[in-house]
This record gives sequence, structure tokens and C-alpha cells, in this order.
Amino acid sequence: MSGAPAVCDVGPRDGLQNDDVALDPRVRANLCDRLVAAGLRRVEVGSFVSPRAVPQMAGTAEVFDALHREPGVIYSALVLNARGLEHAIAAGADEIHIAYPLSDTFAQRNQNATLEQAALTSAQMVAAAHEAGLRATVTLGAAFGCPFEGRRDPGMVAEHVRRMAAAGVEEIMLADTIGVGVPSQVRTLVPLALDAAQGRPVGLHLHNTRNTGYANADAGLGVGATILDASIGGLGGCPFAPRATGNIATEDLVNMLEEEGIQTGIDLDRLIEVAVWLEGVMQKRLPGLVHRAGRFALPAG
Amino acid sequence: MSGAPAVCDVGPRDGLQNDDVALDPRVRANLCDRLVAAGLRRVEVGSFVSPRAVPQMAGTAEVFDALHREPGVIYSALVLNARGLEHAIAAGADEIHIAYPLSDTFAQRNQNATLEQAALTSAQMVAAAHEAGLRATVTLGAAFGCPFEGRRDPGMVAEHVRRMAAAGVEEIMLADTIGVGVPSQVRTLVPLALDAAQGRPVGLHLHNTRNTGYANADAGLGVGATILDASIGGLGGCPFAPRATGNIATEDLVNMLEEEGIQTGIDLDRLIEVAVWLEGVMQKRLPGLVHRAGRFALPAG
Repeated sequence: MSGAPAVCDVGPRDGLQNDDVALDPRVRANLCDRLVAAGLRRVEVGSFVSPRAVPQMAGTAEVFDALHREPGVIYSALVLNARGLEHAIAAGADEIHIAYPLSDTFAQRNQNATLEQAALTSAQMVAAAHEAGLRATVTLGAAFGCPFEGRRDPGMVAEHVRRMAAAGVEEIMLADTIGVGVPSQVRTLVPLALDAAQGRPVGLHLHNTRNTGYANADAGLGVGATILDASIGGLGGCPFAPRATGNIATEDLVNMLEEEGIQTGIDLDRLIEVAVWLEGVMQKRLPGLVHRAGRFALPAG
Repeated sequence: MSGAPAVCDVGPRDGLQNDDVALDPRVRANLCDRLVAAGLRRVEVGSFVSPRAVPQMAGTAEVFDALHREPGVIYSALVLNARGLEHAIAAGADEIHIAYPLSDTFAQRNQNATLEQAALTSAQMVAAAHEAGLRATVTLGAAFGCPFEGRRDPGMVAEHVRRMAAAGVEEIMLADTIGVGVPSQVRTLVPLALDAAQGRPVGLHLHNTRNTGYANADAGLGVGATILDASIGGLGGCPFAPRATGNIATEDLVNMLEEEGIQTGIDLDRLIEVAVWLEGVMQKRLPGLVHRAGRFALPAG
């Protein structure tokens, strides 16, 4: 058992962007508000990227406008370049999430840049975000494996952690973008990353594509990861495996932690209600299990 | 990372008995044969219990008759009483799986006995099985939590491990029958059980009802569990949570272990084919994820 991690719900961004149901910006804002009301203190509200490339994320500025913002909550937005950063600043994001995948082929396909260019751009964006008074985190994508180039060298992963730490980023996230990570890999990578992060927190962004997501979360907390991304209901998917499921489900993660006696500050019952509500909104079954099985409780009476 | 656990596929028994699709005994035998052909060395073929209580398990003797038995494979059957044991002996089972839940209320409902009576009966069955030349394992049900009485006292769990070890059982399985276990609990219970087991192997029977099954498997292997039950495709359910999923999926477990470099001796591709075949036979989607997402592989060419 370890201390409570900070949990960031990335459902409104990573979840929705991988779904074929596109939600109205007001509904997306309502989703964020419900997550905050359930106790989440970090929400990835959306992204400022090309609406042609990611139509589900069109209107993220309107989502920010429609939020009922609570003090103490970090409302973040994903950005991939300077233009996205400008939009995030204008929309009033508290924090930007910069991301680049640790593979040339993937970086080329995802943001039309080499890995080296993506790293340089990211470091510049950290500085620009700080200048504008925003927090900045960097997510190192495909850190556990790339769909085009396979497993990543741990030394290379650590080197990028070191560079982003040197760039002054607030937190560094290792992302298992395509859900191929396994616990032993987490137990190797996280300590290397912590060592390279020069005191900055290291977190995990996990997908449950192959049912290893929660085992990876547990392994990560055991070796010093202090931030976990998750998406309500397990919303989302994987562009490289069309029949696959998405991020670990926030309520399933919170259930595991709370049953271990780790106090997350999140109201699990309210969180389950958000997942059930979202299933109704999206008119589809979401892959999380706790909102269907129910939390462990004895029969009444 | 740890050594390869023995994996027992309980799909033909625990999986099918919790499904509303009842399969013909010849199809059930074919399922067992396919699992063995994929490399499984332990299969729980069926159970000898009341066909009124569990109609899906009617005809287990015919399943045994129809098997193409491979040398070196342990073909087991679940039994709950002396009469079931007689049937298992007559059918030619290699091993009986005796099970009782660690709660008076659950034992009363499940086998019409107190916990104390169930423990005494189980110890007698171990002796009778040995007399007939069969191996005998005991599964301690609801060891992580009972749907009627809540969390179980670890000392009580250990006491039953000690009693069954003293009765001469070959192996002791701790079962998370309703899928409420969490990794920290596994890390407490397994070492206690190993200590009480007087050198006999301790394994885990895990359900993924709330997405903690694979994390529990990983945790268990880290603290000395050496046998894992799983069901092909994640077949099965939970009688206490009608919308819930069943056991951890054998192919998802094997994928996790193999990606960690643990050689299970099981051919993952063939195992995935069995899951896909079974989905066709049952005409329903099974909860395992690897057979849908595919294993981690780079694009060809």
C-alpha cells in the first residue's frame, strides 16, 4: 500500500476523442462539472488540436466557457504546438498537457515531426506556458511500446524524462498509449524516470487495452508513481486496435484504491453515478466494471 | 518478475456454470481438448453436483468420456460431497477440486452446511480421494470477502489453510469468488497462507468482477503464489452481481505473463483462437480483451 495518488480524469479529452460519438461542448462541460462534484481535483477538459484531425475535440474553448469552475481544481487542456497553446491560454486553462510519442514513426504520423523536433517543441512550449502563468506537464507517449517501432529502450525513455525535467515541466507522465505495458516493465521504468526527473513527480497514463492497466497502476504506485490518469467509465478506445477498450476507468481505479484503504478524496458512489449518467448520454455500454457490478457492499437489513 | 505459475483453465466448469448458455457435453469436451492443444496442463473439466442446482454441469461424466486425454495433463472435477467424489472417481478424473466458502451464511446457502461441517467434510473427501488414487486440492471460497458476511479475517483464512494442509491436500487455492479482492489484501493473505500451508503450494482463483483480477494475480505471483485459475475468454459471471463478468481470462493472463518474459509453455496465439472459437459457439461476446485487441505485434512488412 502507498499514499493516495493524484487522479486526473482524462475522459473528457482522451476518452471522447477516441469515441465515435461527438458530444456537444455544453455536455462536455457538464461531464467535467460532474467529475469535479464527485471529488476529482484534476480534469483534462479537452484539447486544442486541429478539428479536422480530431472532430470530437472541436469547441474546447466553449467547453471551458461553460464550466462551473471550482477553486482548487486543475482544469487542463492537451496541446501539441504553439498555436494550441495560444488557444489554451485564451480559454483560461490552468495547465497544459504537452504530449509526444517516443518514436520517430509515431511522432511523424501524430504531429508531423521527428522525435527530436517534438522534444524541442515541447520544451519551448513548457517555457511559453510558464511565461503565461500556466502549469505544464509532459506526457511521453508510447513509453511502453510503439505500434510501429515496438518496445522502447528504457534508457531512451529516461533521457526524455531528463530533458523535460530540465525544461522545467511540473510533472512527467509515462503513457502506455496502446496498452501494451506490463507490471514488470512499470517497475523498471518508473524508478528510472524518477531518477531522471530530478525531484519532479512522475505519473502514469494507462490504457486497459489488454487487461494490464490496473495491474500497471498498482505496480506504479508501489514504486513511486504519484499521479494516475484514468477516464470515467473507461471511456475511449485505441486508434491502433479498433475493437479495443480505452483508458483505465476512474471509478474502477478509485474502487481498488479505496478498498485498499487509500483515501482518494473522491466519492466513489457519486463517481459511479457519473459513469451511469454518461452511458445514458452516449447510449452505449462503457467498459468500466464497477459501475455495473456495484461496489462491495453487504445486503441491506 | 517471478517464475511461471501453473495455470488451470476453469472455464469449462466455473465459466460455463455461471453462464445461461448450456453446452452439449461433446462441445464441452472439445473445449477442454482445444485448451490442452494450446498448451494448458490443467483443466477443470466440470463438476459433479446436483444437476437441479447447476443444470449447466449436467453430463460431466459424458464430458470425461469424450475427452481426448493427453498424458501429463491434469483433468480435474469440482466436487462438494462424498457422492460427487464417487462420480468423479467413476468418471476417471485425475484430481478433485473440493471447495467451501469461508463463511457460515455462504456455506449454508451453497452446500447446506455450517463452515465447520464443510471443513470436516472436505478433510474427509481429501482422504477418500487419496484412497482412490486421486489428487485433491481445496479451494477456500470467498477468502477475500463474502457477499453475506463481508471481509474475512486473515487469521481465520490461515487457520483453514492449516487444517486443509494437515488433511494432506496437494494444493490450497484462495478464491476471490465475488471479485472484491485488492492487491494489498493479496500481499497480506498469500504469505499468511504459505506460512500455514506447511510447504504445500498456494494458488489464487481470481474473478475480475471489479477490474482487480489481473492486479491481484500480479501481486500474488510477487509474494509466492504458484498456481492461478483463469477461464478462457473470461467466460463466466457472478451469481451475486448479475451484470458482472467472471474469472480472469486465461489468454489475458498468459499475455501479461509472456510479455513479462515469463514462459508459461502455453501458445498464446492458439489460446486466442480458442477464445474466438468459443465466442462463436456461445454466440456472445466474452469479456477477455486480448482476443479482441490482438497481442502486441508490429505491422507486417
